[in-house]
Amino acid sequence: MKRIYLDHAATTPLASEVFEAMKPYFSEKFGNASSLHSFGQEARDAVENSRKTAASFLGARPNEIVFTSGGTESNNLAIKGIAFANKNKGNHIITSKIEHHAIHEPCEWLTKHGFKITYLPVDSQGLVNPSDVEKAITKETILVSIMHANNEIGTIEPIEEIGKICKKHKIYFHTDAVQTFGKIPIDVKKMNIDLLSASSHKLYGPKGVGLIYIGQDVKIEPTQHGGGHENGMRSGTENVPGIVGFAKAIELAKQKMKAEVERQIKLRDNLINEILKIPGSQLNGHKTQRLPNNCNFSFKGVEGEALLIRLNEKGLAVSTGSACSTKSLEPSHVLTAIGLSHEQAHGSLRITLGKDNTEQDIDYAIEQINSIIGSLRKISPFGKW
Amino acid sequence: MKRIYLDHAATTPLASEVFEAMKPYFSEKFGNASSLHSFGQEARDAVENSRKTAASFLGARPNEIVFTSGGTESNNLAIKGIAFANKNKGNHIITSKIEHHAIHEPCEWLTKHGFKITYLPVDSQGLVNPSDVEKAITKETILVSIMHANNEIGTIEPIEEIGKICKKHKIYFHTDAVQTFGKIPIDVKKMNIDLLSASSHKLYGPKGVGLIYIGQDVKIEPTQHGGGHENGMRSGTENVPGIVGFAKAIELAKQKMKAEVERQIKLRDNLINEILKIPGSQLNGHKTQRLPNNCNFSFKGVEGEALLIRLNEKGLAVSTGSACSTKSLEPSHVLTAIGLSHEQAHGSLRITLGKDNTEQDIDYAIEQINSIIGSLRKISPFGKW
Repeated sequence: MKRIYLDHAATTPLASEVFEAMKPYFSEKFGNASSLHSFGQEARDAVENSRKTAASFLGARPNEIVFTSGGTESNNLAIKGIAFANKNKGNHIITSKIEHHAIHEPCEWLTKHGFKITYLPVDSQGLVNPSDVEKAITKETILVSIMHANNEIGTIEPIEEIGKICKKHKIYFHTDAVQTFGKIPIDVKKMNIDLLSASSHKLYGPKGVGLIYIGQDVKIEPTQHGGGHENGMRSGTENVPGIVGFAKAIELAKQKMKAEVERQIKLRDNLINEILKIPGSQLNGHKTQRLPNNCNFSFKGVEGEALLIRLNEKGLAVSTGSACSTKSLEPSHVLTAIGLSHEQAHGSLRITLGKDNTEQDIDYAIEQINSIIGSLRKISPFGKW
Repeated sequence: MKRIYLDHAATTPLASEVFEAMKPYFSEKFGNASSLHSFGQEARDAVENSRKTAASFLGARPNEIVFTSGGTESNNLAIKGIAFANKNKGNHIITSKIEHHAIHEPCEWLTKHGFKITYLPVDSQGLVNPSDVEKAITKETILVSIMHANNEIGTIEPIEEIGKICKKHKIYFHTDAVQTFGKIPIDVKKMNIDLLSASSHKLYGPKGVGLIYIGQDVKIEPTQHGGGHENGMRSGTENVPGIVGFAKAIELAKQKMKAEVERQIKLRDNLINEILKIPGSQLNGHKTQRLPNNCNFSFKGVEGEALLIRLNEKGLAVSTGSACSTKSLEPSHVLTAIGLSHEQAHGSLRITLGKDNTEQDIDYAIEQINSIIGSLRKISPFGKW
């Protein structure tokens, strides 16, 4: 059976160009980038060239890019690093109810260390209201962290406006851009971003690598201490092949972004239009202000996990909620935040497209979703639809 | 010019078998191990099989192994995770003066959060005295962290005895085994180890992956918060190819350890004997209780960095001090701890052997070191030797 991968928000396959770029750095140019000899120097050059690529992609300076092990580490560093470095100024952080666990959990941990967190609500489409951000600011506020786009429902937040408000109030603004980096344009200066998190494996780069942009005037302390790598901001031997692969993935994203956004929006909107013809279906998230590759549906009387399992049997890899909380029986905190009932939240289906998906893939998915929902509803305790 | 790599304590090339093992997990079996569909499940299986391999290698249970991004992260997790989880019991940590920066720096950071650190001295061969550990224990002590072997001078510490003392006093014992894991046998139960850090890239595995063994009864909190991966101990999408490669490297180490230890000791001792014939040379570290692949010398009247640069010109990749502090102008804290003067500490040369080094490599290194030391001494401000 042919398998069709429609879960690109969870992770993506490594692009073949990325694999080729990484290859020499495993067993030939394998040096430790901190070593002074020639093996070390070729590793160092590779890391610094990668840093330039990442910086230029964001409109940043190379010394503002810190490579990490991934989006979760970047988010932890942003939240805790700002909190501890600025606790003399205040102890208040503003974020939203729909952030990723990698933001919520560090925030929760900080409450044990004297910090206070405001979780802003979102509207029914998942949008944070910038004026809510401004209203929540107190003289204790040191950081606002609002994601660029939501990983479950794909809603793109008005971060440029939020960044402007933060700038006006001289409060650091962090955005978790794990879902947008490489998918839609980002300019950290224009968008008033002080800190930004990104992950390589969401854009056809390797797992185990990420970055954090930290504006050069930002006062922050590291969270991982040791040999002082990454300009003292992130100790630990640099993952040279990973960083090289990440940079190659960024290059590819840059080249292909415009055409790919157009192509994916067309596929996505076709999928949305067809699925919404199913009675009792609804689209979650914003209709237009959403990631080019994201669809998120709820179906009355259908349990999301059952749908996922049946689609998997037909070779379709999709998701219900985020891959990071699949082990939890709790309904998605994102879907409940936009006002879905527990039942609706449990019935959600996330489809996220990627560069290799074709019209035929989407047609097959539509056909299978229709057929499976029909048969699941026949056995649903919630009655017939 | 042929290049000879003699800096295996800094990093190692990926073994070809490791590369082959990782390969399918980049672009074919590329799923997120938290996804419920078939792509996710094959990634999950790979991670859990790798965990079993790592656990069995250490005499541990699979649920006691947490994969991290490397040795530095593992050390940070051990030190801070134990500190914060046990602060109600006490605020005192015992370590040694010759630990890696990835131990010292987290400890230093903890002093800003109310913790107190005792740095035990070592003798002139780099050995921690177990009775010093026992004497330093107070009723506030919650953790002892002593490395298994030192990364610069190769001295192997009496950790089994130290572990026994910790067990008697019901204090957690952590060992940084980054330099020994895969090189000499480790049995966490027999050696009374509660927590152990290891890194993949020191044993021909990929960079960007490590592990921490955490005994199942250990009370610890995570340092990287988010989606609750790795049984809640280390959030962040698992680096599946990295973890698979690490497990393969462990398998290879297990198979080859006995023969390789014998072979390397022979090469090492030949190198030591020949180099010690140079007037004004000395071996740093313990003569026998040392890593099979480690040599560390000082040469009177010779600056280590100059020696390294000249050897590099001859195709020989060696190190002065640790790769993690090469940017620092400070003399090595390890060499000063064993009693070397600043001048001697600056003149150190570390040679660490690996699986591909031959007798011919060593003969060439001996010849070049002899010749370069001769010519450096002619221009040395410290006079002639």
